[in-house]
Amino acid sequence: MTEAYEKGFFTEENSVEVVTGRNAGARDERLKFAVGVITRKLHEAVKEIEPTQDEWMEAIQFLTRTGHLCNEWRQEFILLSDVLGVSMLVDAINNRKPSGASESTVLGPFHVDGAPELPMGANICLDAKGEDMVISGRILDTAGNPISDAVIDVWQANDEGFYDVQQKGLQPDFNLRGVFRTGADGHYWFRAVKPKFYPIPDDGTVGKLLGALGRHPYRPAHLHYIIKAEGFETLTTHIFDPDDPYINSDAVFGVKESLLAEFRKVDDPARARELKFDSWFWEVEHDFVLAR
Amino acid sequence: MTEAYEKGFFTEENSVEVVTGRNAGARDERLKFAVGVITRKLHEAVKEIEPTQDEWMEAIQFLTRTGHLCNEWRQEFILLSDVLGVSMLVDAINNRKPSGASESTVLGPFHVDGAPELPMGANICLDAKGEDMVISGRILDTAGNPISDAVIDVWQANDEGFYDVQQKGLQPDFNLRGVFRTGADGHYWFRAVKPKFYPIPDDGTVGKLLGALGRHPYRPAHLHYIIKAEGFETLTTHIFDPDDPYINSDAVFGVKESLLAEFRKVDDPARARELKFDSWFWEVEHDFVLAR
Repeated sequence: MTEAYEKGFFTEENSVEVVTGRNAGARDERLKFAVGVITRKLHEAVKEIEPTQDEWMEAIQFLTRTGHLCNEWRQEFILLSDVLGVSMLVDAINNRKPSGASESTVLGPFHVDGAPELPMGANICLDAKGEDMVISGRILDTAGNPISDAVIDVWQANDEGFYDVQQKGLQPDFNLRGVFRTGADGHYWFRAVKPKFYPIPDDGTVGKLLGALGRHPYRPAHLHYIIKAEGFETLTTHIFDPDDPYINSDAVFGVKESLLAEFRKVDDPARARELKFDSWFWEVEHDFVLAR
Repeated sequence: MTEAYEKGFFTEENSVEVVTGRNAGARDERLKFAVGVITRKLHEAVKEIEPTQDEWMEAIQFLTRTGHLCNEWRQEFILLSDVLGVSMLVDAINNRKPSGASESTVLGPFHVDGAPELPMGANICLDAKGEDMVISGRILDTAGNPISDAVIDVWQANDEGFYDVQQKGLQPDFNLRGVFRTGADGHYWFRAVKPKFYPIPDDGTVGKLLGALGRHPYRPAHLHYIIKAEGFETLTTHIFDPDDPYINSDAVFGVKESLLAEFRKVDDPARARELKFDSWFWEVEHDFVLAR
């Protein structure tokens, strides 16, 4: 056979070059680059794992079932990306912060547009269920100056680990959601209830995979924040309860050390009365620093 | 923060260790190993590509649409595996042959169980459409000895590039399919028509990807063989027409140099009469060597 024939033929040794070599005429350089990297890493994985034909077919069927689980209200591939740490890695790469700025974490699937803008101090818990909590802090720039007119969008699960949208009819609409706007002092505060840990949806292919890997499906308790201010990068993040049983094993790897807040139990009848709480309550203080 | 806290937390630098570290309690060592490799290679790919959040979402949507295209008669994830060279790589890894044995290639989606066993020399073309062809050769062991009672299952596309199952009603059932059994001389021969190149299904996500990469969807003309004999490894392979326009660019990378046959045009009225052909015909001779 001539060398011309040999050129295009696939072998175990030259597999990457042969496959990526076919993309020479790609219309889009970025796509060509990305598919090239994915092909190379896929082939490296196959060469290291050496799957049997049956194992390859199991992988095909896993992807197929994962696809079939996706619909307008469920995204099993995002869940797969989450539990393999890919979502957090993409977040990390896209949110490398200047020194001193607050770190980001995943948006999650439970953000809702159109939550009501509330006066500072409002209680976002609309059904009085759970342990009272007061949250406060400041929105600052990296020089430590307060940012005024910062818009703070917060949402959280209730004390049973469910968001309002997961319990339509059981929780009031927009329960545990609110939007606040800072004044000249950059200060914010609102009242809520202590959130609880909860499982990611674990009745599909991803849940089954977690089970087979000996992993639990829980996310530690957290509050979500999106903070926007003119002239600054928007910050999408959480703050976490460091005493949560799952704080060191978040199923989606969203926890960062800098996002651990302190949840202090306060037993002060005078302050409770002032805050319109019945008795003891939780207090959380957390500042956020935005990058320009 | 204490070291204990730091332990489980995800960073861009330690992403692989944190994610794979969670699998310590996996029930199945093989699954743990495979998921570990896949996680590492996925993170390496993400770190090299540095996808934007939008690009990550495009990848999620590509996988989702690919899953939605799969049903009982279409497998778009296998097609994706094929065009990225993964299927051929898995084939190569599972079919490393001893020196001298014939090489394998992909089974493809068009094999049908239950094709009729025919006497040597039978014509598997049932509708007399296409250019006549006679195929012959021997089934040998690696020492060159003939193998008797080898069962040869052959199938091919017609001269328009379609298998019978793709043209139900237009082609007779079991057109261009047959099963032959060797005698003591290990010899086989049958008559057919010259097959033609054809496209893999290209109206889905994989076809769109090929288009964006500047790749065509064609497979060069070939005959499929599955050869079984007691005491030998079953061989699943093709033989290819080296003069096909797509011989150096098979969309699924199935071509190997050793699988190129010679398709000779023969203009010999006496032999044509003997073979019951009207005039000139194609002749292919190809031996297969089975590994014990």
